[in-house]
Amino acid sequence: MTKSIYGETFALWRDGCPEPWHAYTHHAFVEGLRDGTLPRRAFLHYLVQDYVFLVHFARAWSLAVVKSETLDEMRYAARTVDALVNHEMALHVKTCAAEGIDEATLFAAREEFENLAYTRYVMDAGLQGDLLDLLAALAPCCFGYGEIGTRLAATAAPDTPYGDWITTYADAGYQDAMRSVGALLDAAVARRLGPDPSASVRWPQLQTRFTTATRLEIGFWDMGLRGK
Amino acid sequence: MTKSIYGETFALWRDGCPEPWHAYTHHAFVEGLRDGTLPRRAFLHYLVQDYVFLVHFARAWSLAVVKSETLDEMRYAARTVDALVNHEMALHVKTCAAEGIDEATLFAAREEFENLAYTRYVMDAGLQGDLLDLLAALAPCCFGYGEIGTRLAATAAPDTPYGDWITTYADAGYQDAMRSVGALLDAAVARRLGPDPSASVRWPQLQTRFTTATRLEIGFWDMGLRGK
Amino acid sequence: MTKSIYGETFALWRDGCPEPWHAYTHHAFVEGLRDGTLPRRAFLHYLVQDYVFLVHFARAWSLAVVKSETLDEMRYAARTVDALVNHEMALHVKTCAAEGIDEATLFAAREEFENLAYTRYVMDAGLQGDLLDLLAALAPCCFGYGEIGTRLAATAAPDTPYGDWITTYADAGYQDAMRSVGALLDAAVARRLGPDPSASVRWPQLQTRFTTATRLEIGFWDMGLRGK
Amino acid sequence: MTKSIYGETFALWRDGCPEPWHAYTHHAFVEGLRDGTLPRRAFLHYLVQDYVFLVHFARAWSLAVVKSETLDEMRYAARTVDALVNHEMALHVKTCAAEGIDEATLFAAREEFENLAYTRYVMDAGLQGDLLDLLAALAPCCFGYGEIGTRLAATAAPDTPYGDWITTYADAGYQDAMRSVGALLDAAVARRLGPDPSASVRWPQLQTRFTTATRLEIGFWDMGLRGK
Repeated sequence: MTKSIYGETFALWRDGCPEPWHAYTHHAFVEGLRDGTLPRRAFLHYLVQDYVFLVHFARAWSLAVVKSETLDEMRYAARTVDALVNHEMALHVKTCAAEGIDEATLFAAREEFENLAYTRYVMDAGLQGDLLDLLAALAPCCFGYGEIGTRLAATAAPDTPYGDWITTYADAGYQDAMRSVGALLDAAVARRLGPDPSASVRWPQLQTRFTTATRLEIGFWDMGLRGK
Repeated sequence: MTKSIYGETFALWRDGCPEPWHAYTHHAFVEGLRDGTLPRRAFLHYLVQDYVFLVHFARAWSLAVVKSETLDEMRYAARTVDALVNHEMALHVKTCAAEGIDEATLFAAREEFENLAYTRYVMDAGLQGDLLDLLAALAPCCFGYGEIGTRLAATAAPDTPYGDWITTYADAGYQDAMRSVGALLDAAVARRLGPDPSASVRWPQLQTRFTTATRLEIGFWDMGLRGK
Repeated sequence: MTKSIYGETFALWRDGCPEPWHAYTHHAFVEGLRDGTLPRRAFLHYLVQDYVFLVHFARAWSLAVVKSETLDEMRYAARTVDALVNHEMALHVKTCAAEGIDEATLFAAREEFENLAYTRYVMDAGLQGDLLDLLAALAPCCFGYGEIGTRLAATAAPDTPYGDWITTYADAGYQDAMRSVGALLDAAVARRLGPDPSASVRWPQLQTRFTTATRLEIGFWDMGLRGK
Repeated sequence: MTKSIYGETFALWRDGCPEPWHAYTHHAFVEGLRDGTLPRRAFLHYLVQDYVFLVHFARAWSLAVVKSETLDEMRYAARTVDALVNHEMALHVKTCAAEGIDEATLFAAREEFENLAYTRYVMDAGLQGDLLDLLAALAPCCFGYGEIGTRLAATAAPDTPYGDWITTYADAGYQDAMRSVGALLDAAVARRLGPDPSASVRWPQLQTRFTTATRLEIGFWDMGLRGK
């Protein structure tokens, strides 16, 4: 297992789908953010869709509170809802406002299929299964953006116009939150799958959920690029 | 483990709470059905509440379809919904009609606290957890009525006026359906907890769900007796 | 309002999005079924995906039972689950078996994005809103296939190899079931929106749900054609 | 309509069940808090149960985020979850700690039937209906405690040992939060029922949900008194 600062469960799931994971975290869209060549229109198209994504992502983390079985699970999940609704979405609002797109317009944006597929798959994972099914579907976005933010902060072109975006995910606030999510995930897994989780009968299905959500991240970047 | 025709999981859970199980399946209300001493008013009070219970029980089995992960799980759960909505509730409707209570009145009956507590606990078990959490909360009603029906069919006073009720749960149709539910449960457990389910970390919580629902069955009989 | 045998609500919603509705019900995929020019590979690709679609559609109709507020709502929804699980899916199984694809393979098929988007959007409509939100998202599939079946049965090329498919949706069993669903929908609307539903404040959102699901049907046919 | 600082919808619902509302807000348990005659054991029994109640109440408000349709709905509901999990529960923890009951014990307390009935009824209202169904079931607790807190702060015996409890619900923080919840409720009603909500066909059912939850509040105080 390749280690991760986000915990053991994530590291195992990421290692369980190396090709989709690389395709997601090193997507042409990401490289365009890094070297600054991403067309502004593609970025804005992505950003509007990502705002709507975060609305449903916050709903999904709220469903995680509904599905929590311990006080710590509840608190971490509730904190993540707060971080999404009151902080991460603010970047989108600020950036879009500078382009003349107000928040009501963002909220009402027509969702692309890739967006619908991803967000609703996550919600349904929570409705169909337990907290682990939901967390497996939430994990690729959380930790993938964490990895991308860290890598891009270290390697981005100095003049990329996407520095604000990179900083949002590279900074200590986001990174600390994701370490907490990773700790929550490891504890939730231990509680439900025991001391050797990857040997449990549920593991393949949880891996499939993680891999599916990773594929949906790739589709999301593809959708972003279509906007150029 | 004491064996049961309804499968291994049920037998383990039943053995995991012998006192509540006995208090439920040998409740004064049940003995009153058996020897015929149960006051008619108590029976009718119970029957009206039980009709509303079955409405929510059918909703809960429908939630089991939503939470199913295999075709067999879906099919058994869907069949159980059909059996509840189109068959078991018919006894209640027929018996109540003979007493001048029509089905619309049944459907609109004000639920007693014990009824609300039980049915909504089951629904929420499904929302909070996975299919096993839901099935653990559904199991005491399914199999307990099966055991009661069989025992009372063999031992009831010949002149008990509650023969129809006893027959409903003793007859081959109900018993076969419950064997199927037991097989579904064993398979669902194997799929999610592996070959040694009672050693899994989730077992205590599933036992607690089963025990809680058993306690709620006792409360339901108590509520029935209050109607006398 | 153009009348429909499936009731008034459907007729209003269909009239509320004439272009997407036509694009869906007269899609090139549909015309290929009608005149027999649809490549076999595209049909099979569609059929495998549609099998998985029906699995989730049955879950969504089960969620409709969970969300029902009247006995009629429960009964119709439960009957639809039964029709889907025990009848409509049988066509897919039979046709696919003839091509050497067994049911376990069908059930485990990897879902295309358009499939995920559609089915999970429907499920989430039910989780987010009430029964009407769910029915608005379920309606385009139910009634659109009804319209397509009827039209194709009257106009298909005599030698189209897709006669079985057309018959499934044109025959009295499916048509009767859809009239029942239409009656259920009209009653559910009257119960929640009153005597002038299209004047209610909720109407635009329900129309949006219907239109979104119609767009997702177009995406589903597009996905089918990609399989050729 | 008797006015309320918590908005019009609440005032209408409260006026729609004057006797249960009075029985709840002027219950012997409440009067015992006011004049200080409530036995300490009853208070502690209540407080432990109320802690578990708040756990599920926070889950229910999280479900409100899941069911929100506007940004304001999401934000208010998310803020309420935060207030519950990170603030209101703190009183219980502090008071119980002083009595030697730690938070893990609180979290694991066996729920009384009245508690199960109430909390799970609220959750299921959200699963079965839309945001209004959920809010109607959440409202009696929110606003009733607000009214009780205000009244007791003005009239309590100076030496009642329950001053901390009274202050929790009388102080500006709680009162402001409940005004916000009232504004959210009025807006959610306007969005879904239009300008004359009490004339809408859904009104009787929403009133029933509010009345049922009010009855469950009465049961909760009864349960508290049983602890003496």
